[in-house]
Amino acid sequence: MPTPKLSSSMFIGMSGKDIISFGSGQPDLPPPKRVFKAFSRFKNFKYGLIQGNLNLREALAEKYPKSTSDNFVVTNGASEALDLTLRVISKIGGKAKNKVLLSRPYYYTYPYLVKFAGMEPVYTDSIKGRINFDDFKKKIKDCKAVIINSPSNPTGRVESIDTLKKIEKLTSDLGIYVLSDEVYKDLIYVRENYFIKGPHVITVDSFSKTYDMCGLRIGYLWSLDRELINKITDMKAHTSMNTNILAQEMAYEATKTPRSFIDKQLKIWEERRDFIYNGLSDMGLDLWKPEGAFYVLPKIKNSEDFVWNMFKKYKVITYPGEWFGVKDRVRFSYALDIDKIKEGLERVKKHLKSIKVG
Amino acid sequence: MPTPKLSSSMFIGMSGKDIISFGSGQPDLPPPKRVFKAFSRFKNFKYGLIQGNLNLREALAEKYPKSTSDNFVVTNGASEALDLTLRVISKIGGKAKNKVLLSRPYYYTYPYLVKFAGMEPVYTDSIKGRINFDDFKKKIKDCKAVIINSPSNPTGRVESIDTLKKIEKLTSDLGIYVLSDEVYKDLIYVRENYFIKGPHVITVDSFSKTYDMCGLRIGYLWSLDRELINKITDMKAHTSMNTNILAQEMAYEATKTPRSFIDKQLKIWEERRDFIYNGLSDMGLDLWKPEGAFYVLPKIKNSEDFVWNMFKKYKVITYPGEWFGVKDRVRFSYALDIDKIKEGLERVKKHLKSIKVG
Repeated sequence: MPTPKLSSSMFIGMSGKDIISFGSGQPDLPPPKRVFKAFSRFKNFKYGLIQGNLNLREALAEKYPKSTSDNFVVTNGASEALDLTLRVISKIGGKAKNKVLLSRPYYYTYPYLVKFAGMEPVYTDSIKGRINFDDFKKKIKDCKAVIINSPSNPTGRVESIDTLKKIEKLTSDLGIYVLSDEVYKDLIYVRENYFIKGPHVITVDSFSKTYDMCGLRIGYLWSLDRELINKITDMKAHTSMNTNILAQEMAYEATKTPRSFIDKQLKIWEERRDFIYNGLSDMGLDLWKPEGAFYVLPKIKNSEDFVWNMFKKYKVITYPGEWFGVKDRVRFSYALDIDKIKEGLERVKKHLKSIKVG
Repeated sequence: MPTPKLSSSMFIGMSGKDIISFGSGQPDLPPPKRVFKAFSRFKNFKYGLIQGNLNLREALAEKYPKSTSDNFVVTNGASEALDLTLRVISKIGGKAKNKVLLSRPYYYTYPYLVKFAGMEPVYTDSIKGRINFDDFKKKIKDCKAVIINSPSNPTGRVESIDTLKKIEKLTSDLGIYVLSDEVYKDLIYVRENYFIKGPHVITVDSFSKTYDMCGLRIGYLWSLDRELINKITDMKAHTSMNTNILAQEMAYEATKTPRSFIDKQLKIWEERRDFIYNGLSDMGLDLWKPEGAFYVLPKIKNSEDFVWNMFKKYKVITYPGEWFGVKDRVRFSYALDIDKIKEGLERVKKHLKSIKVG
């Protein structure tokens, strides 16, 4: 059977006996127990504030510099935060320069969201999974916005603070919007997160990865640009209204979780990172060592065939590099327990051997 | 103080002592008790299927003709269902004829959503709150889609079955998409709901009004056009991913609620309808008798001033007709208990008297 055109909706949410999924980027770990406290508070379900529940926004404001609850919009996950921001930005300052710079490999949703918003993606190819600042500098000049994603899905790499500071200065000087997708900011193995600052910075974050709450779709955006915040809120009043109020109460509880919860989980992620990195390296695959998030992106030729065969013959889900803008790589999420990673790697090994022999 | 530019985000989600809100269209009644059963099933929160939880879609399929779970997409309320559908439709068949017909007065979100999707709203003025089919027939020919909203927010009117059948035939003959926003289909006082049929019909519904679950943002769309369903699902995979899985489980429980729950609430709505209709009529206001939903739209001159004064001087929230495309009317939602309606009407009476005297 030839490899069909692969699409993410083939795999997302899929589970079953014997399936090993390195596919979807979602933690298998449990959320903090205290999020369930929110259940007892709920009897009725009236609309909430479009911008988000006040208690949640106030709790978030404590974690951001120079901020009040007015600097936030709570959204249906980071996805809606990005979508709304791009849709609003596309209408600011006319249609000229309606380009958005993306570092390639990119999170596969970015080019779609840019195009859905009526804008055009422009690409800068990363070097070993990190931004090539010289190329970035040239291409950003024609753009209205850029999406930065550090730690990166799919590369697992973290940008150097030096690069981030140079990006801050350049975009601030040029008046370019920076969408900083920091959903993996609490899953960094190599240093503290560096929070990008600037008058036109929109930081996007979510409770999905840090607190294992993907299915509740609870995220938010932050910006010092209050006018932009208001425009985004006005649009959301039409496109989806308030974000689920119960999920917001659960997210509020999550903000009260002690840091030790995150530290404990980070240790687990790091063990898995080491395990899969070593396992794939030992098979002779060329890959970058992940510094954050929970993805590896080894070089594998004919990646679509690899993904399809692994799925049909070995019940192993992986995502083809094509989705992320690179042809000869495959993304493995290691958000599953070591035993499953081990079993999955065995199957990969078997397949790779069979190709070589064949 | 002059009347400022009024926007919906000034009022939505607002509450407080002494405020009487005829503003937001949300039930004050409690949801079915069984929706809380869903809480006990939840421990972890992984991503769900983009299209929606299977059990919920299967339960919905039992209520729709010739349908399976594949004919549905579960969304963040009816708002997201409309937004996604319009965004997808705008890209079908090129940019020519990118017009969407709206019956005026319209739900205030429609023109925004049409424009956000890069299309142009075209208007047909209703007669006494119902579609003027002769005008409709002329204007629909230039359009790619039409939004039908019966029962209507803000008019409270229900289209005649004869009109709906003529619309079915005409749009089917011309190959025009019909977005049938039926979120008030269970709140009709005058007859059973008439379900619009056709190859290009997209029915939009929600659990907000029927089951008093507004704040959970749980809605869905239905269509026999499977290609369209797939395109909408693909877009949602990028713009918001799955709808909150916990809210979907609660909605699933709601589908198992006996019809008597709805009938009991309908009786309450009808009592309130009679009370506010008689009260406003007695003040000499010109208005249509609501046949469904929970809105009245009396004629009131200088409606923006009226709305602003009622809010600032009398703590009564109402919405200006301008938001719904008509200058000389004001929308009252009667989704609050009779005592509050009574108190609110007293304040309106007082204000109207003061204007006459002044």
